Amino acid sequence: MGAPRAEILCVGTELLRGKPNTHVPYLSKRLSDAGFDVARSQTVADSEAEIRDAVAAASARSAVVVACGGLGPTFDDLTREGTAAALGRRLSYRPALYRAILRKYRRLGVRISSNNKRQAWVLEGARVLLNREGSAPGQLLVLPGGRTLVLLPGPFSEMSPMFEEQVLPRLRRGPQVRRRVWRFCGIAESAADRRLGPLVRRPGPGVEFTILASPGAVELHCAARTDAMLDRIERRVRRTLGPFLYGRGGDTLESKLGKALRRRGWTLAVAESCTGGLFSERITSVPGSSDYFLGGALAYADSTKRAFSDVSAGTLARHGAVSPACAREMARGVRARLGSDLGVSITGIAGPSGGSRAKPVGLVFLGLSTRQGTFSRRFLFRGDRAQVRSRAASAALHWALKLTAAFIKR
Amino acid sequence: MGAPRAEILCVGTELLRGKPNTHVPYLSKRLSDAGFDVARSQTVADSEAEIRDAVAAASARSAVVVACGGLGPTFDDLTREGTAAALGRRLSYRPALYRAILRKYRRLGVRISSNNKRQAWVLEGARVLLNREGSAPGQLLVLPGGRTLVLLPGPFSEMSPMFEEQVLPRLRRGPQVRRRVWRFCGIAESAADRRLGPLVRRPGPGVEFTILASPGAVELHCAARTDAMLDRIERRVRRTLGPFLYGRGGDTLESKLGKALRRRGWTLAVAESCTGGLFSERITSVPGSSDYFLGGALAYADSTKRAFSDVSAGTLARHGAVSPACAREMARGVRARLGSDLGVSITGIAGPSGGSRAKPVGLVFLGLSTRQGTFSRRFLFRGDRAQVRSRAASAALHWALKLTAAFIKR
Repeated sequence: MGAPRAEILCVGTELLRGKPNTHVPYLSKRLSDAGFDVARSQTVADSEAEIRDAVAAASARSAVVVACGGLGPTFDDLTREGTAAALGRRLSYRPALYRAILRKYRRLGVRISSNNKRQAWVLEGARVLLNREGSAPGQLLVLPGGRTLVLLPGPFSEMSPMFEEQVLPRLRRGPQVRRRVWRFCGIAESAADRRLGPLVRRPGPGVEFTILASPGAVELHCAARTDAMLDRIERRVRRTLGPFLYGRGGDTLESKLGKALRRRGWTLAVAESCTGGLFSERITSVPGSSDYFLGGALAYADSTKRAFSDVSAGTLARHGAVSPACAREMARGVRARLGSDLGVSITGIAGPSGGSRAKPVGLVFLGLSTRQGTFSRRFLFRGDRAQVRSRAASAALHWALKLTAAFIKR
Repeated sequence: MGAPRAEILCVGTELLRGKPNTHVPYLSKRLSDAGFDVARSQTVADSEAEIRDAVAAASARSAVVVACGGLGPTFDDLTREGTAAALGRRLSYRPALYRAILRKYRRLGVRISSNNKRQAWVLEGARVLLNREGSAPGQLLVLPGGRTLVLLPGPFSEMSPMFEEQVLPRLRRGPQVRRRVWRFCGIAESAADRRLGPLVRRPGPGVEFTILASPGAVELHCAARTDAMLDRIERRVRRTLGPFLYGRGGDTLESKLGKALRRRGWTLAVAESCTGGLFSERITSVPGSSDYFLGGALAYADSTKRAFSDVSAGTLARHGAVSPACAREMARGVRARLGSDLGVSITGIAGPSGGSRAKPVGLVFLGLSTRQGTFSRRFLFRGDRAQVRSRAASAALHWALKLTAAFIKR
């Protein structure tokens, strides 16, 4: 693609003992958005030899290397030493920088020890990056051939403003890259891949595709040189996977459903059994959802299905709680009780136990009720308890979105 | 330490475009627990050359390399090819393995295409690892000198059981390390750190501490050489942070509350407003929760608070929905309606809008009702909408747990 190659290097043993890494998602997204091809990220322990090897390899193969962590004052902050060894450059002590660090500590009311002097050791030829949120300065080094190596402090709150304000503006950017994300529901990753087939397998010059999947959702990411190219690709995506496409970019099923309900002027109520609140939790994660969401019933026990959504004893006795009839009564009942325009219901067997031959784990019935009528649909979802619940909530959001959108006058 | 060196290699361009990596925290923790020194993790793009270089370097310097991702059927699943190139080994097609994959797909009711054949390509000398959650088999290769290279599928739900059941038992372990995790609620990370002070700052030989925090929860991880050392440390932890300690190891607030309700023989109902189903979703994520959880009301709109938990119009008019009186009526109302032993309610302002000087964003009232009486508590939570909701749900679970546990006869 001609995008300059970038790499991320994190230093910190804790990141190799179970601590989640928030730096790589942030830095990789920011660097990709700025036109870099982020081809690798590495995390190494607090060891001078590990740091040295990783810096040497990364700076030999990438135009930009962003390293974070290991710049503090303690004995296990070894990024300065490791980098000096990798590049064969000296470290020099800067008394003026140390005085600035001392003043900073004094303002923060922190007592310091002499090992803080290590924070004032700077790589030969490096530009010092000021740290307005903490004590450890960063360093930016332009290597022969124009490659750039950046050392940033480990705490996220210090690293991210330094990166935004003092690093990004100094990087020579790559050719412009436009990105778009399409989001699908109701189709498996492998089926989406098969249908997209030639489009994603022979994407043509300057175009890059990635397919991502999580339970109940598939995303197609595309990078291209111009918006016109993306528009052309989008038309092909719509032709191929139109019925499953529900949104772009940062859209979610719940945000799209919220927008559709708002446009339609509808209110929504829900009766959830096996999803246990997950549908509602996703609806209400959208700020302002109180404009269209009335709430509903956590209809977990049969007695609650009866009390809050007027499921009849006869239906429960004849068909059981996991049945199309029960789903319809739940959707109609909660809509009538709360006076909403749309009623949604979810009842099924999330597992791991409770399944039978006739009604296996993963069997879920959805109900949808409007003044025009009440409907049910049957699904058999794969996966464990969490996946069945997640897929069921997504399917309910998707069906409710399709129905609401169909009622919007164009 | 003499611990054998391990490395993790993740394959997936999406992990270099902003997607969080859940595999490294999990695998690094499990490998550390098993006595390995996890010295590095790498993430590379879906590129055969990147995979080849990373596998070659990692398998040359580490006793164990665990790679995940890139084993699927699609065009950008290139781990098999990259590894073959790195090690100079052939890939061979295994018809019997392909037939097994086909049978699996058929059972799942999925239509497949011929590109699935790629999943049946196996590295020369590799042991095939069965995938009971999906289609892509894993591969385990013992290299000359006893080094081990493992290829695992990318989806977490397929990777983790394969790792636990088929990889860990086959690895030659390092010296024993005992680990324990204590879980706290209701105290900030910085306050916990300050109170633990000398214990974690001068841990003594062979002891290692890590504090992890997420909204509404703090974890203290400890590694030591013997269980006796951990017991001694646990006594000090209990003395210092006893009131905030709710569990150990894999305990969660919802699993502990479920156990306490079961022991007490109590049933639970909930009326949720600002958390919108999150409390219930966490309760019902525990298999078997239908034994004690009746469900409740998604009391989002005021009309729903009235319809499903009998909040009086007078209370709403005089005090508003975010008030101690409303919280008490919700808890009492939903308990009475559904006939549960315990009623829990959550009402508050999750933001970003809706706050005022008198009732700012983050203000949450919890209600708790039993036959003995009904109580409310006021909280002011920090953070954005998601964090306020998460902290509120955790606080409600924690309070309900403490009350239920207090009623258990010893």
